[in-house]
Amino acid sequence: MLLFKRISVVGAGLIGGSILLAAKKRNISAQFSCWSHSPASLAFWSNLGWVNGHTSLKDSVKDADLVIIATPVDKIGETFVSLAPFLKPGCLITDVGSIKGAVLKAASVLPPSVNFIGSHPMAGSEKAGARNAHADLFENRFCFITPGPHDPADSVQKIEQFWQSLGSKTFLCSAEKHDEIVAAISHTPHASAAALILAVKNLPGFKPAAVGAGLKDSTRIAAGEENLWVGILLANATHVAQGLKEVEKQTAELRTIIERGDAAALSKILAAARIARQSLDQTHE
Amino acid sequence: MLLFKRISVVGAGLIGGSILLAAKKRNISAQFSCWSHSPASLAFWSNLGWVNGHTSLKDSVKDADLVIIATPVDKIGETFVSLAPFLKPGCLITDVGSIKGAVLKAASVLPPSVNFIGSHPMAGSEKAGARNAHADLFENRFCFITPGPHDPADSVQKIEQFWQSLGSKTFLCSAEKHDEIVAAISHTPHASAAALILAVKNLPGFKPAAVGAGLKDSTRIAAGEENLWVGILLANATHVAQGLKEVEKQTAELRTIIERGDAAALSKILAAARIARQSLDQTHE
Repeated sequence: MLLFKRISVVGAGLIGGSILLAAKKRNISAQFSCWSHSPASLAFWSNLGWVNGHTSLKDSVKDADLVIIATPVDKIGETFVSLAPFLKPGCLITDVGSIKGAVLKAASVLPPSVNFIGSHPMAGSEKAGARNAHADLFENRFCFITPGPHDPADSVQKIEQFWQSLGSKTFLCSAEKHDEIVAAISHTPHASAAALILAVKNLPGFKPAAVGAGLKDSTRIAAGEENLWVGILLANATHVAQGLKEVEKQTAELRTIIERGDAAALSKILAAARIARQSLDQTHE
Repeated sequence: MLLFKRISVVGAGLIGGSILLAAKKRNISAQFSCWSHSPASLAFWSNLGWVNGHTSLKDSVKDADLVIIATPVDKIGETFVSLAPFLKPGCLITDVGSIKGAVLKAASVLPPSVNFIGSHPMAGSEKAGARNAHADLFENRFCFITPGPHDPADSVQKIEQFWQSLGSKTFLCSAEKHDEIVAAISHTPHASAAALILAVKNLPGFKPAAVGAGLKDSTRIAAGEENLWVGILLANATHVAQGLKEVEKQTAELRTIIERGDAAALSKILAAARIARQSLDQTHE
């Protein structure tokens, strides 16, 4: 169903590119344009024939009624500043940043004639870049939408409808609540996985050739690109630090139980962990 | 190639059962027998037609020239005691326990007429039990073999040949070195994953419905059966406690960097973690 006349994606890498492919596949917009800092990405999208790739931000958002900012989270602020003069009055702006509080603050530079509503689709991959984009990346994925208290209801609904059209399950909450949630379910686990692989590597018994699926799976996210994650972790520093403190506390508690050889307490804590982990596979909403 | 006249597996669950299937498929033994504490498992194996399932330990090891102890690691000691009077002189004994130091000590109750050489195949699954056994579980997997300094070379070679026949890559080291290695690559990650899921569950932002592949993968091993892991972690307590201390140290360092907003230091530590994690996928031996 056509929801927009022209969608413009600013930053057409893995996420932005997947939005182009998903929106085209589902016929959500009549026209598509994009901007990328990478000439290779731009060529990739222009070659498809149905995307207008631009090296100028101004040209890329011209006549767009939906603009999606998909630049790295620490670049969103400057992207807002650069785009502000060129946005069509009445157009909708969203972003896909993993942080919503800082993005909402940065969005204050946008003109009052446009509507900004933040989004965060919980989709991605360690494999970045346009060439890894695919049309079903958002299918059955969770997508946060974080309106401010004064955003018009019809704009919020349009953004919800957009993500639902791409196959996502949308969830509305404040930017602050979002940041607290992703600290728990994404940012703290990411930092923890990084700490775990660095710790294991320092141990005298570390033997890479013997490593099996367990350690590989539990540290897979630590292979993510560091500069993307510096931006995310620092923008959500307070919540992430709180999360890591709790990880340190639980790790120390488990260690103390092991040191004193308390089988009953160890069984109890491992059972609680097993139940908590198993419940993640049983969650349906 | 026939290596043995009769293989006996004591404890025919996931690992023990997979040994039966793998050894039959590769024609490593003329006859197979097994013991299980579970009547359902015994019936499962007996129904295959080519395994003699026994409820008596004595009967299960009769005439066996290779006996594989595949009971839970904290039961291996008592299994040795129960089996000791019934083992055929000259027979080879191995086990598949995740701990080798404690097993080697426990093996001192075995009669001098038999040869015990510990093994640890790095294979398994969260899905325990005979019904999840499969013939290719050991294919391309790493398998520790941990002879003592006085074990006869031909016995060690026979055990190596056995695991290689099942498709495993064998690695010889002392029981003590083994325990140090698995503390780093398996036991510390397991305890860390348990601590992480418990920490995340305690955070105010924990929202199970929004959890994606990242947290699920990084805590998957924490879904393992707790009583198996109580035995493992306590038998390797010194090394695991050392590993968890290092995890606490790395986590605290990362947290401190985040708290002081040091982008350069954060980028450096995340890059080190990414490189360490990526190198696990590039290991070939």
